[in-house]
Amino acid sequence: MAFSSSYFSFIFLILLFIISFVVGEIKPIYLPGTYQSSLEKQHVKSKIPFKVHYFPQILDHFTFLPKSSKVFKQKYLINDNYWKQGGPIFVYTGNEGNIDWFAANTGFMLDIAPKFHALLVFIEHRFYGDSMPFGKKSYKSPKTLGYLNSQQALADYAVLIRSLKQNLSSESSPVVVFGGSYGGMLASWFRLKYPHIAIGAVASSAPILQFDKITPWSSFYDAVSQDFKEVSLNCYRVIKGSWTELDALSKHEEGLTEVSKLFRTCKGLHSVYSARDWLWEAFVYTAMVNYPTKANFMMPLPAYPVQEMCKIIDGLPKGASKISRAFAAASLYYNYTKREKCFNLEGGDDAHGLHGWDWQACTEMVMPMTCSNESMFPPSSYSYKEFKEDCKKKYGVEPRPHWITTEFGGYRIEQVLKRFGSNMIFSNGMQDPWSRGGVLKNISASIVALVTQKGAHHVDFRSETKNDPGWLIMQRKQEVAIIQKWLEEYYRDLKQN
Amino acid sequence: MAFSSSYFSFIFLILLFIISFVVGEIKPIYLPGTYQSSLEKQHVKSKIPFKVHYFPQILDHFTFLPKSSKVFKQKYLINDNYWKQGGPIFVYTGNEGNIDWFAANTGFMLDIAPKFHALLVFIEHRFYGDSMPFGKKSYKSPKTLGYLNSQQALADYAVLIRSLKQNLSSESSPVVVFGGSYGGMLASWFRLKYPHIAIGAVASSAPILQFDKITPWSSFYDAVSQDFKEVSLNCYRVIKGSWTELDALSKHEEGLTEVSKLFRTCKGLHSVYSARDWLWEAFVYTAMVNYPTKANFMMPLPAYPVQEMCKIIDGLPKGASKISRAFAAASLYYNYTKREKCFNLEGGDDAHGLHGWDWQACTEMVMPMTCSNESMFPPSSYSYKEFKEDCKKKYGVEPRPHWITTEFGGYRIEQVLKRFGSNMIFSNGMQDPWSRGGVLKNISASIVALVTQKGAHHVDFRSETKNDPGWLIMQRKQEVAIIQKWLEEYYRDLKQN
Repeated sequence: MAFSSSYFSFIFLILLFIISFVVGEIKPIYLPGTYQSSLEKQHVKSKIPFKVHYFPQILDHFTFLPKSSKVFKQKYLINDNYWKQGGPIFVYTGNEGNIDWFAANTGFMLDIAPKFHALLVFIEHRFYGDSMPFGKKSYKSPKTLGYLNSQQALADYAVLIRSLKQNLSSESSPVVVFGGSYGGMLASWFRLKYPHIAIGAVASSAPILQFDKITPWSSFYDAVSQDFKEVSLNCYRVIKGSWTELDALSKHEEGLTEVSKLFRTCKGLHSVYSARDWLWEAFVYTAMVNYPTKANFMMPLPAYPVQEMCKIIDGLPKGASKISRAFAAASLYYNYTKREKCFNLEGGDDAHGLHGWDWQACTEMVMPMTCSNESMFPPSSYSYKEFKEDCKKKYGVEPRPHWITTEFGGYRIEQVLKRFGSNMIFSNGMQDPWSRGGVLKNISASIVALVTQKGAHHVDFRSETKNDPGWLIMQRKQEVAIIQKWLEEYYRDLKQN
Repeated sequence: MAFSSSYFSFIFLILLFIISFVVGEIKPIYLPGTYQSSLEKQHVKSKIPFKVHYFPQILDHFTFLPKSSKVFKQKYLINDNYWKQGGPIFVYTGNEGNIDWFAANTGFMLDIAPKFHALLVFIEHRFYGDSMPFGKKSYKSPKTLGYLNSQQALADYAVLIRSLKQNLSSESSPVVVFGGSYGGMLASWFRLKYPHIAIGAVASSAPILQFDKITPWSSFYDAVSQDFKEVSLNCYRVIKGSWTELDALSKHEEGLTEVSKLFRTCKGLHSVYSARDWLWEAFVYTAMVNYPTKANFMMPLPAYPVQEMCKIIDGLPKGASKISRAFAAASLYYNYTKREKCFNLEGGDDAHGLHGWDWQACTEMVMPMTCSNESMFPPSSYSYKEFKEDCKKKYGVEPRPHWITTEFGGYRIEQVLKRFGSNMIFSNGMQDPWSRGGVLKNISASIVALVTQKGAHHVDFRSETKNDPGWLIMQRKQEVAIIQKWLEEYYRDLKQN
């Protein structure tokens, strides 16, 4: 079975695999899921202590074509409650979505701002949220989407930050960039490419090594599986076995009806693979957000939700099928609040215009992934050829699979950065499957890896809570101490010049 | 007098100032000079021990527009006479011209290749020489020229080097980049932006600080003046006074005829300012190439040509006018071989298609320059507004005067690079006016400045000769020792991984 799953959006629920089953081949293509819609509504409503601004940003930094100088409105958020003129500026390098959501889920920056008298700035990534260079037509075709990529985004941040400092008459303020997930990749790349603008970067859960052949392709799904296995071997085995049961069901004449009933779908299913994707998504995202406290990032979930899922799987009465156990576990993810009477496994539309990641995955962000025999998912290989053809069909462009490692590096990163660069924190939680593509070892005295065994997807960036475990408190303390060192060094150097 | 002289091509003779005299304002606009044509012919003929190759290069690395993936043929030269598989690769990051010329004038790399068993690669800069993305139409309009800039050039080098190493099955070969003048800027920026591709950079006479307000705007012409003043105060004073005499001449009814006669022009002059530019150019370029040995970079010239010029000025009989002395001195530059019977001060065409620098100067390479009262040139100020209007008129685009410092930095470079980056040599000769915009002090243990008081424009990159002075031999030795250290460190690290 060829499985061209390289474009896995980090944090979005936008994607439901639509799987076409062609002579034994499974091709997932991400399309928006139903659940994203309600999630999105939640985000818009969330109240965050920031003022909204818009910056006239240049469309294309790297050519001087007549079209390049077109200007679009780039959204950014400011909190100056704690800032003192000349004090540091903490910038979040926004990732693939509405910047409000990242601001709402990066409470760490708010928590530490008073200590540093820091200005907080959250910059939205071009082509996401309100920062649409071509308004509603931004996603229309490669002629507009062509301007969506990470290098342009980094240049946006550079131009905006420089202008902001000038407007604030605070040009000697040190800037520290923060980012989680793809935003963390951007933060670390920003420090590497723009060291004259950011004195340091805190990159949380940033899988900058998930490209080309740097990280084993099976590591992501192996890591998800590992999370479940660690909690309960039976739980892992049940999930691993559930796919065959689902397959078997689909071969009955009444298969679709049976699956629809079992999955309590609001409408009869069109494809049994919708059920498959629905489960898949629940397990993957629950592993990612396997936080030590109750949280609501992807979905409202209890503390250590993987454990809770396995409790459900292991706790059902003898005789319950594997697939029914898998369904019950997934329901925790989709319905922890118990508000859903039935589930919409199919559908979704582009109303929220958050599909930029698909484009990025089809052009620059090519991350090959496979499922090994040891994973709890059906084994699958990766075919670049199929991936490329899918992308060509979808967007009319060919991916550049080696571009990211050419532009940003990644191979032998220890050797390269051991003697180059400084002031970077790579934090990762090993519960998070993305950690496997991250930097997990210290590279030099000032390029350090903070790894927690029980941490999940950028958990360190979440607001502190009274239930935070000791290791998380400690991790954040380490980050604060390192940032403080960068700032002290900067101000000392500044005085000497 | 407003003097918007920011686009001074580093090494080309392509430019004769065509000055329009409007109500006391002097606006120089660079157009090709007559002398470039014959110079260009010389270069094409020069024999260099390299094989010519062409690489299918992508047009636009930083967008994924349908047009971006257009491929053009990028020229590069290879010499593998001394290379051993796995040995280092020395890459010259080509600047604004035919790559053959740079190869012919960077004998240093050939001289040191045997010692290091190095492969030599000279890569031509896009939109120069034979590397024309749109063939003869490349310079047609901003729609084609829009792809000509330094960031695209750097990405070209990254893509080409990576592909070359793969083709050579020598992916662990360390790459050191070399460049002189604008090529040196590119080499240093390449090390900063692509540390995973180049382990070090030797940047000779690279004025990376000649932007924005980093370096005083008058420093370039002050440095030219300093060269002449150091040799002879009288010489400096004569040149300084010659402009007024030329002005006075131009006010006679028969002024043009007199000037034509005095300057031994082949045809009668249309403007007295052609004579002014002709002198100006001779003094500036002679200062740049004030080499300690006989050389032929811009023009065939004797050792220490500034000294020779001043000998001419100081040696003419009493009673000779300042302007006639200035003419005689300039004749050394234009006619050291004594072959010219008369001089063509006006004219020139675009036959050689080397005007890319004008475009770069009008878009990204905005280097403001003025002439102070202390310089030997007529005092002049800088008007960005005029510069911008000239560029708009000429190309229909607006310059981005702060873009280079946003993209590559420059302000407080010591503070930034003291704690970031490594393995860079900035070599400068203080005779070269471009040195003033260069890095003249060591920044860290491995980002070093090699400064020679008697050196000129990337003199260290020239082939060694038996007449080389001790300081030049020493400078090259230092460079070799530093490169050797980088390589030893690299191979040691490689073994450990």
